Order: sequence, then structure tokens, then C-alpha cells
Amino acid sequence: MRLTDDHRSFAATVRSVVDTQINPYVDQWESEGIFPAHDLFPQLGKYGLLGIEYDPEDGGEGADHSYTMVACEELGRIAAGGVSMAINVQANMATPSLAKYGSKELRQKYLKPAIAGEMVAAIGVTEPDTGSDVSALRTRATRDGDDWVITGRKLYITNGVQADWVCLLVRTSDEGGYRGMSQIVVPTSSEGFSVARKLDKLGNRSSDTAELVLDEVRVPVANTIGTIGRGFQQQMEQFVIERMSAAYSIVGQIDVALEKTREYLKQRTTFGKPLASHQYIAFRLTELAARNDLLRHHNQAVCEALMAGEDITRMASIAKWEAGRLVREVADMCLQFHGGIGYMEETWTARMFRDARLASIGGGADEVMLQVIARIDGYPLG
Amino acid sequence: MRLTDDHRSFAATVRSVVDTQINPYVDQWESEGIFPAHDLFPQLGKYGLLGIEYDPEDGGEGADHSYTMVACEELGRIAAGGVSMAINVQANMATPSLAKYGSKELRQKYLKPAIAGEMVAAIGVTEPDTGSDVSALRTRATRDGDDWVITGRKLYITNGVQADWVCLLVRTSDEGGYRGMSQIVVPTSSEGFSVARKLDKLGNRSSDTAELVLDEVRVPVANTIGTIGRGFQQQMEQFVIERMSAAYSIVGQIDVALEKTREYLKQRTTFGKPLASHQYIAFRLTELAARNDLLRHHNQAVCEALMAGEDITRMASIAKWEAGRLVREVADMCLQFHGGIGYMEETWTARMFRDARLASIGGGADEVMLQVIARIDGYPLG
Amino acid sequence: MRLTDDHRSFAATVRSVVDTQINPYVDQWESEGIFPAHDLFPQLGKYGLLGIEYDPEDGGEGADHSYTMVACEELGRIAAGGVSMAINVQANMATPSLAKYGSKELRQKYLKPAIAGEMVAAIGVTEPDTGSDVSALRTRATRDGDDWVITGRKLYITNGVQADWVCLLVRTSDEGGYRGMSQIVVPTSSEGFSVARKLDKLGNRSSDTAELVLDEVRVPVANTIGTIGRGFQQQMEQFVIERMSAAYSIVGQIDVALEKTREYLKQRTTFGKPLASHQYIAFRLTELAARNDLLRHHNQAVCEALMAGEDITRMASIAKWEAGRLVREVADMCLQFHGGIGYMEETWTARMFRDARLASIGGGADEVMLQVIARIDGYPLG
Amino acid sequence: MRLTDDHRSFAATVRSVVDTQINPYVDQWESEGIFPAHDLFPQLGKYGLLGIEYDPEDGGEGADHSYTMVACEELGRIAAGGVSMAINVQANMATPSLAKYGSKELRQKYLKPAIAGEMVAAIGVTEPDTGSDVSALRTRATRDGDDWVITGRKLYITNGVQADWVCLLVRTSDEGGYRGMSQIVVPTSSEGFSVARKLDKLGNRSSDTAELVLDEVRVPVANTIGTIGRGFQQQMEQFVIERMSAAYSIVGQIDVALEKTREYLKQRTTFGKPLASHQYIAFRLTELAARNDLLRHHNQAVCEALMAGEDITRMASIAKWEAGRLVREVADMCLQFHGGIGYMEETWTARMFRDARLASIGGGADEVMLQVIARIDGYPLG
Repeated sequence: MRLTDDHRSFAATVRSVVDTQINPYVDQWESEGIFPAHDLFPQLGKYGLLGIEYDPEDGGEGADHSYTMVACEELGRIAAGGVSMAINVQANMATPSLAKYGSKELRQKYLKPAIAGEMVAAIGVTEPDTGSDVSALRTRATRDGDDWVITGRKLYITNGVQADWVCLLVRTSDEGGYRGMSQIVVPTSSEGFSVARKLDKLGNRSSDTAELVLDEVRVPVANTIGTIGRGFQQQMEQFVIERMSAAYSIVGQIDVALEKTREYLKQRTTFGKPLASHQYIAFRLTELAARNDLLRHHNQAVCEALMAGEDITRMASIAKWEAGRLVREVADMCLQFHGGIGYMEETWTARMFRDARLASIGGGADEVMLQVIARIDGYPLG
Repeated sequence: MRLTDDHRSFAATVRSVVDTQINPYVDQWESEGIFPAHDLFPQLGKYGLLGIEYDPEDGGEGADHSYTMVACEELGRIAAGGVSMAINVQANMATPSLAKYGSKELRQKYLKPAIAGEMVAAIGVTEPDTGSDVSALRTRATRDGDDWVITGRKLYITNGVQADWVCLLVRTSDEGGYRGMSQIVVPTSSEGFSVARKLDKLGNRSSDTAELVLDEVRVPVANTIGTIGRGFQQQMEQFVIERMSAAYSIVGQIDVALEKTREYLKQRTTFGKPLASHQYIAFRLTELAARNDLLRHHNQAVCEALMAGEDITRMASIAKWEAGRLVREVADMCLQFHGGIGYMEETWTARMFRDARLASIGGGADEVMLQVIARIDGYPLG
Repeated sequence: MRLTDDHRSFAATVRSVVDTQINPYVDQWESEGIFPAHDLFPQLGKYGLLGIEYDPEDGGEGADHSYTMVACEELGRIAAGGVSMAINVQANMATPSLAKYGSKELRQKYLKPAIAGEMVAAIGVTEPDTGSDVSALRTRATRDGDDWVITGRKLYITNGVQADWVCLLVRTSDEGGYRGMSQIVVPTSSEGFSVARKLDKLGNRSSDTAELVLDEVRVPVANTIGTIGRGFQQQMEQFVIERMSAAYSIVGQIDVALEKTREYLKQRTTFGKPLASHQYIAFRLTELAARNDLLRHHNQAVCEALMAGEDITRMASIAKWEAGRLVREVADMCLQFHGGIGYMEETWTARMFRDARLASIGGGADEVMLQVIARIDGYPLG
Repeated sequence: MRLTDDHRSFAATVRSVVDTQINPYVDQWESEGIFPAHDLFPQLGKYGLLGIEYDPEDGGEGADHSYTMVACEELGRIAAGGVSMAINVQANMATPSLAKYGSKELRQKYLKPAIAGEMVAAIGVTEPDTGSDVSALRTRATRDGDDWVITGRKLYITNGVQADWVCLLVRTSDEGGYRGMSQIVVPTSSEGFSVARKLDKLGNRSSDTAELVLDEVRVPVANTIGTIGRGFQQQMEQFVIERMSAAYSIVGQIDVALEKTREYLKQRTTFGKPLASHQYIAFRLTELAARNDLLRHHNQAVCEALMAGEDITRMASIAKWEAGRLVREVADMCLQFHGGIGYMEETWTARMFRDARLASIGGGADEVMLQVIARIDGYPLG
């Protein structure tokens, strides 16, 4: 994977959007506990950032996946993890299935405005009792004529307060386990749909995360994405993109953190010399920078494999696992080497420390990633 | 070090105080960003918890250091790290020099009410530009007749908003480096003394941490603790107690965290069996429990050595270093294995994750501890 | 646990034995792949090192366990791990059950000469297919009148080539699992007993490790140690002592390794200054020294608990687990910081790297230790 | 970097050579402490493996660097690290400078037979007192008419006993530091050249490593590679290839180790189920497999960058650093999970454990790699 001038030019555009239209406002959004998705997303839509790979017919850019990688890496430079996460949900987590499997009507109605940033999308999979175990999902859609009638609860839903529609994974049969699920687009304005509460999270505070309640919500069967009963499989594909978008963003997030820390440590003097000249500190940070390059190049290999049409489940799980572990350690060390000031909320390190902690949990916990990889590798785990 | 029935009985008393008079209120104190020291400390004073080893003449209990260890371990079970830290400052960080080196008059005036919990004490060493490098300290006391006139700034001062007096380390000569410092008791009601701001910290939010400004503050020379010019050396002794009180508390903090996590994981089922029965999870938590026992027994050895009158600088630095590293990892893993709910502020894991992070910075950063130990061991570091 | 002058005097004696009667010869023993147990052990016997805690009536010293700890730590300074291991087998792994549960006749015949160093003892538990799973043991003793007739194989038997007798764990009933085992003293001169082969190990090469074959070996039922059918339980007790003797020795082994490395690095100059003054190197080695102190003090706490009659299974498992992990890391880092010369067999680091690797496998692998601790802590592992 | 069918076909060829012409003999070579370079290399030469990227005019294959990567990865599957290392020295460490900078005459005389496998080459940089600090090099070539007269010692020279010529780095001026060095081809048959001793190494025992002595060795000035005085710079370029060839090989070495271990653990049963089904074991090995993929993809990115003509010093240092750390941990864990049998020399794990240890020392120690990267990243290290 060699990045071209075209990639670099695109990256510069995204960075400029981040620097001028996002970063100046994130402190405020963080303190308010929510960012204005309906204001921000249309701006991103103008730059094509919400539909990079999608069909121009749906308003997308028709670019290949490498541009998604580049964009995510730049979005990782946003100074509040909650905002980049929310954008990733809109662009890479809630819409891929719809783009790939959705009917033309469904795409016109829901994907096109999402790409334009006019509608905010969310992805509804996790439930109060499922954790990372999707097979335990209980939300149920029962067919009633041309409608689904849906009842259940969804937890930890990013963009959940502001969303206009949710790509909901529900049971549409009684087969149980991984069978008989479907993906359905559910408008949040539907009767019976409500936001039970906005969650108070450790970090990513500018992102609204909600618990959703569906009480006999009625939507047309035509809102089903792709094939009825294939929801789990479609969602698994969508998860793979989700994991990569997280891994891509983290590489950018780490770059910024290490750059800022290095510059700080060059200025900051103790015991008569700059902290950056202390070998132990320099080496510890260098180890992290080195690992970020390993991750970056792995990501690029995944990107190429995906573009070549290969099954990237194993590779994407590796990327997600390492990204989560690494960004946590980076956040931890950057804070450490700032000393006391690093522990103050006025310093970016405190926010990053809170934000980064989610990376090993959201989108499949580290242990789930290891389980996925181990099984693919042939370990006879139960 | 074998704990006796007397120790166990004392531990039970402290635990009861924690359970009934502290833990029920910490959520509120955390949300308020401060705890009511002038209400809580007198209660602790009644149980003798603020002067365990101090002279009964000063209102202390006259017990040996092993009871301090036992008390700290129990205080570590407080569900908000900020509160146990604040108590430790009062009992083991701001008062030991005064108790050991202070004149009778000074002890009557400041130590006795601190032991009773009627006065809140703080320790003022760190300055905006010093970090862990005490030799860079610049706050200056100039003698004017029988008074010191003090000007300077102190940063990261625990109890700094509520304190009635501060055990201040200042320069009383121009010798520079580690020479010519003195410890002086400065009442916060003194003219020229002000709290510049209350700091907004990542964690330990129930503890008030302040930046203090001293602008020609005038106090009697008689407020000097011990010998003029020996302040650095006296403070180094006090630091050793500070480090051990932190290490003792952390052992208790980890005990609680691992107990609560194990109980949660026994209840929480995914993929058809309790999370606690997943070998990877059980082993990872067991590794942490094992390390906590190593730390606990090391602490006991330090306690014995201190009681035997040995120089425990090296041992205490080891305890502090390992305590900081371990509690961070415990907090991180407990949160991880709770999954999504562990990332919510409603769960104790989020607070612990924020609180525990300070342990490797406050009271001497990990790297400072390593520097101290390495030098004692003969490494020719600059 | 405070060490007394008496302990220190004893330690000095043991160190002198190590320095004068062992270390000058270990290079030769290593190259020969065996040490002369029948020459060395009588010398150790003279100093009482093979029966420190045993009854004076059996030739023991009647000292308490703290002297075993002190002795083991000093024996850890032997410059070949195989020799200290062999001594530990004689003194602390093969004889404790006999000393505690053996009949007077049995002790006179086998323990007394073992304490004197005239007979070499081995402990026979592991079999080709059991690994750390003692419940899978298959060697069988069938009663025939007043004799046992024993058939089976034992693997990884330290001192196995030179042993005069083996404390053998065998099945004496068909109950299966952990039931119906017994400990039997089997003279190696018995008909049907043979050494199938001396094993070629990665390290500890001066120690003879053997696979033993028992083909209808006949020994008196009176050779049974303690109660018929209680062999597993008695062996579990013996394992605990084994684990602690390993952990004690490792502390001494690490002390020497870090001392020697530090001295080397003070002499060795690269890029114009001694390697010992490179902060990264100094800190990495200091971290290891710090961890060794944590282990040392934990060991002392276990020693005290054992002397107080407590069940130390959990504590001993922690000690063994950390000792194995730490000594491996120490060996690895000492070799690393020696650079190229550290990789040469002429340098002690190469041997230590090979020797130390066994510590996490022999006497119960790390994973077995974690399993033991986790179960005691209440994790519902299968 | 997408591997093509052509790469895969080439890989299959190399694997077949490894499986049929190397692996059946390595046990013998290991026990003999040397492999027959003059027998093996001509066979490799037939397959073009010793001159993959070199000019067909010199007998090379004229392929691009990606084939070197593929070949190294397959050579990493050789069951004795010493043999793959020796081949790497011949193909990628001792000859690149000669191929790039050597005169036509010099290439005909020394490179062509090296590519054919008829001459064995070595690279002579390290000296007894330099370690990784090339600037401390003291071997001196003094000009005498058209000859150099060379005196000095070289240490840790792979292939040193069997080499026909050495690419020697020497001082050709008195400028000191990194200046005034030259690379000179020195035939080992020269008068005054001798092998002082064959070194007895911890691992890689089938590879002959020597200390070389040059006592007024006279070679033509025409044997100088490239520009007189530019030796250090040319060697730095050569080091980069050396580092990558090591990193490429290690990926293959790790693949084999993890495959073999997994298969063993699927067969090996304890406590009633295959060891491979223990979650802790499966996850620990999966973590290592995941890290190997990160390294593999990083290597591919370095390969592409090198082919694009970029300076890969930083990237190559990262690859070498991670490769060394990872292969050591893999060797350690594979041995651990084999249990007792893994510690026996009869099992491949023992050899790998000894072999792999060199990876973090040879070709620039881990700490040197960190130093290189940190400086490039702008840390103001001394």
C-alpha cells in the first residue's frame, strides 16, 4: 500500500476540516456532554466525508477504501475522541449494510440524507444483557402484515440521542442463537420509540450515548436491509468495517498524542535538562511510536486485502485488538510524562486518558477479538 | 510482621468508620468536587485516626507504626480515592515533621487541633516549575526580625482549599540546590495568603487540590519546624512516611476492587457461563491479586524496618513505585472485565480508573522512585 | 520477619561453603553433565545443611524454618542452578514427608543417611503422561503379602541417576483421581529398578535428571511413608515446601545476577560513558531489583506463616509463580545488557539464561500456580 | 504490498530447499557446532538464493527486493537459527556493499563466487571493545604503496571460521569517530590473517562465529569497496539490509514455532482436555500470532519503501527491534506451554529458545535501535 499524492491531498483537506471546523469547538461540546450532530454533519457531508466509498447515485464519492483509511486517520486527530467516534458511526458503522444490501428506495430515503449529513444515523446491536455476545440478543420484531412490530431495549447506542434513524439488529424468528436475525431501519420518530436515558460515560463525553427503548414500534417490512434472516451475517460484515475505522482513527490519535508530548517534554526542564533528553522517557515513548508504525502498516495491509475482496475478519480483529491496547498505553504514558499537570482536566492528556479507555471495549472487547482470532487459527475453544 | 488480634480489632473499627461514616456520602462529595473536611475530620479524630503514632501529650494515640499501616489499608477501602488521600495528608503527610521536630508551643497550637480534626492541614512543597525536582524550589522566606516574610506559589496542594495551616517548604537562604530550606507552619488566614484556584482534576474529585499564592505572608520565625536550614532533610523523612501511607492504602484499595470485580463476574454470564469461569479473565485477575500480596508483605517488612529505626528510603520507594503501577493496572483490568457498564460513571470502576491514575505521579512519580533506588544501588546516574 | 545476628552468622557460613566448596567446581560439573552428589552431600551434611529443620534424633539440626529460608537464599548464589536444585531436592523436596510422617525405622534407614549426605534422595512424582496433573498418575503398587510390587515410569527425576532411594508417589488402590495414592521409599538398588536414560536438558546441566523405570519392583509395605492412601495429601504438603525452597533460592540467585551485572556495566564503556550510567539500562535493572525485594519480603511472610502453622498453599503458589517469572526476566535482561559477550557460554549469563528457564515449569508450572490460587480465591474454574 | 503468484511460487521453491536439503541435516550440524558452508552454499547458489537482487552480470537474479523478503521468510523456517543466519550473512549482510559499490574487478573476483556459493563471505565490523558503538572501532589499515596493511581484531564474526573473504570495516585515516573508515575485501588466506578462536555460543551453534586477528595483513588498495573514507556510510546502508533480512526471517521462524506448538497442544491432554482448549494458553499464543502479523505487514511496508528508494533507516530499526523482542517471547512461550518436555534438548523449543535470544543483540541491540529511532524522532539524546 503506497499512498499517492491524491491520498495526501485528501488527507490535507480532512485535516483542515478538523483544524478549523471541529477542534476549536470540542472543549465546549465536551463540557456540554453532546456535540451538535445536525450542525456538524452537513458540513462534513459537503466534503464528502460521510460517504467516501458509497455510490455516487446515493450521494457518495465512489472512492475506494483507501480513502476511508486516510480520512479516519485524520479524524483521529480530533481533540475529543467522542466526536471522531460519532462520525465513524455515521460513516462506517451504521451505514455500510444499508449501502451494500439496502433497496434503492431505502437508500434514497435513509442513506442519501445520512451521506449528506442531514440525517444522523446510529447502529443498534448491543442490549442490556448481551455484552459482546450477539447471540444472546432478544429484541424481537414480529410480522404483522407489511409491518414489523418491534419490542426490546438497546444499550450503549452512540449518536443515540440525536439519531434520526437506527440500523437495528433484531430477531425476526424464533430460531435462536445466531439465526433468524434481520437488520431493520427504524426512524426514531416512530411511535413507541424512546430514549430511556443518556449515559454518563467516563470519556468521549461529547458523544451522546443512549439506552433506547422500543415498545411495539411499527415499521414497514420494506425497511429491512437485505435478506430477512441474514441480519447477523450482514452485521458481522459491518462490524469488520467498524473495527477497521476504529483502528485507522487510533493511528492518527496516537500520532498527535506522541507529537504533542514530545514537544512538551522538549520545553519542560527538570533536574537541569529537558525531560525529552531523559533516556528512559525518550525510549518509552519511542517504543510506543514504533508500535504505532507497526499498527499503521498492518492497517494498510488490511485495507489492501479488503480492496482485493479478501475475508479480513482475522486481520481486522488483530488491528482492533492492538489499536485498543496501544492507544490506552499511549494515553497512560503521555499523561505520566506530563507529571502533575497531565492529571489536570485543563490538559489534553486527561481527556485522552478517559476517551482512549473505550477502545478496548467498544466494537468488541479485546477478549472477544482474541476469541475470534484463536478460533480462526484452530484453537478448540468452547 | 505478624498481625495480632489487637491489629485486627483496630482494623475492624476503622472499617466500620469507613462503612458508616464515609462511604455512604462519597458519591455526593465526588459530585460536589469537595468533601467537608471540617465535619469529617473531627469524627476521625474521635477514633484517634489522625494521630495514631503521635504523643498522647499532643492528643495522639502513642501507638506504633503498624497501626498506621493497618489504618491506611482500611482507609484504602473508601469508595473515593480523594477522601483517603485527604485523610492521609492530614495524618501522615503534613504532620509528621511537626510531630517529630516541632517545638512544644507549635505542636500545641497546630498539631493538637490537627490530631483532633479541628484544624485541617496541608503540605506545601511542589511549585509550578518544580515537578518532582525539589531542588528547583523557589518560594522564599526572608527574615525580618522575629518574622519570616514569605513569597511564592505552591501547586497541587491537597486540602489546599480547606486547610487551616500549611506545612510549607521554603528557601530561607540563598545557598540553592538542596540547601537552605526550612519547614514553616503557615496559617491560611495570614494576610497575603490566598487560594489562586481549585484545580479540576481527572480524579480524586472529592479532594480539593489548590494552587496557593503567598504574597509577603508574615509568620513568626517560631513557626519554623525543627532546625532552620534543615527543611529539605526533614521533608525527605516526611516524604518517606507519605510514600508508605500511599502504599498501605493502595493494598486495601486493590483488595476491594478485586473482590467486587470477582463477585460481579460470578453473576455476569456471557456465552452461557459466568465471566468468572473464563480462564483468561480469572488468571489475569489472579495475577493482580498475587501481586497485591507481594506488595502487602513488602509493606509489612517496611513497617517493621521503620519500627526498628532503619533507613527505609529504598524500601519505601519500592513500595510506592509498585503500588502506583499495580493500582493502575488493577483499575484498568477491573474496568475492562466489566465491559461497557464498566465505562459508565455510574459504576465504581470509572471513578477508580480516574482516581488510581494519580498514584504513579503524586508523592513522587514512578521515574523519580526509580532514580532514588538506582542511585542508592550505585548506578552512576547524572 | 526480622533476621537476627544468628541468621546472619548462619548465612555467612553457608556462603563460605558455596564460595569454597562448590563454586570453584561447578564449571567442571556443568561440562560433565553431572555433579558428584556422593562427594558433595557429605560435606554439606557436616554443616547440617541437609537437615536444618529435622529432628536431632534423625541427625537434623532442629532449627526452625527461617534457617531453611536463609540457607536456600545463599544456595541460590551457587553459580550453577543445577547444583542448588539438587541440594534442594535432597533437603527440601524428597525428605520432608519422610521426616514428618515416616516411621522411626524408616527414618533411621533412609532419612538419617540422607541428612548426613551419605545417601542421595530423589522425589518421584511426574510421569511421562501427567505433566503437572498429578491426578493422572498411573504407576501402580500392588500388595503382595508384606510387600508392594511396583510397576511404572517416572520422568524428570532430579538426582535420578545418582539417587540411593526415591520417595515415590504411586497408586495403591483403584480409586482413581486424587485418591488411593501412597508415598513409598524405593531403594534404587532394588531389582527391577532402572534408569532408562539421563535427560539432556537445556540448562541445569550439572544436575542429573532421569527417566526411571520400575518393573515389578518389590519393596516392603513398611517402606510406606505415613498412611497408606494418603500419599497425595502428604505430597501436596511436601510440594509446598518444594515451592518455597525454590522461591527462597531464586531471591539469592537474582541478587548475585544483578550485582554482577551492575559491576560489569560500571566497567563497560560505550559511546563514551559507562553502560551503568545509561538511564534506560539503570532503570530496567532497578525495576528488577525492586521486584526481587517484593519477592524477598513475601517469602519472609510465608516463612513466618508456615512457622505459625498456617496453611500457606496460596502464599507459596504466589511465591513460586513470581519467582519463576522474575528470575527469567532477570536472566534475560542481564544477558541483554552484557551484549554480545553475554551470549557466549564463557559468560555466566548464558548459563543462567538456560538454568533460570526451568523455574516457571519445574515444581508446578506458572499456569498451575495460577489455577491453584484462582480456585482458592473462588473463581469457578472447571 | 500484495504478494503475487510468482512470489508464492518462489516461496514454495525455497521451502522445498529448506525441507529437503537443510532441515534433515541441521541436528547433526548443531551437534558438530558448524555447518558445511562449502557444501551447502553451492546448492543454494543453484537456486539463485545467494544473489536474488544482484546483477545477472555478477551471477545474480536481478529480482527486486520483495523476493529477498520472501526468501528470508522461508529461510526462517530452517530448524536451526544458525543456518539461516549464516545464509543471511552471505546473501544480505556481507555482500550488499560490494554489489552496490564494488568495482567490476572486485565483483568478478569476490561477489560472483559468493553468489554461486563457491566462496563463503563474512562481514567484519564489531571489535572486542566496540559493542554496538561503531565509532569506537580501532582496526587500522595503513597505506603502503598500492597496498593496505591492516592490523586489528574483529569479534563475533559469523561464518568467521569458514569464510574465504571478509568485508572488513577499518580505519583508513586518523580522523576518528565516524570518519575515515573504509570497507575492504580481505581474503582469509592472506598472510597475517588468523582465526583466533571459534566462539562457544548459547545458541545458533551450527553457525561458526569467530574472533579474527589481523596482524599486518596486506591487501591491494583495489580491494577497497567504493570510496575510501566512506566505509562507515556504506556500512550503515548495509546494516539496514541486514536488519531487514533478520526481521523477515523471524516472521517465518515465528510462524513455524506457533504452528508446531498449536499442533502439539491439540494432541496433549491434561486435566481431561487438550491444552489447546485452555483459554489462557490459547489467548497468550494468539496474542503472539497477532503481533507476528503486525510485524509481517510492517516488513512488507518497509520492503515497498525500500523498493521506492526511500530512506528506511527508521522503519528498519523498528522492524529489527520488534522482531527481536517478539521472537524471544515466542520462543519463551512455546517452551513454557510444552512443559517439562519443552525444556529437553530433544525438543525443538530448547534450541529455539537458545537461538532466538541473539535476535535482540546481534545486528544492533534493541537499545541501539531505540536510540536510532528516538534521535530521528527528534529526542535530544546525548
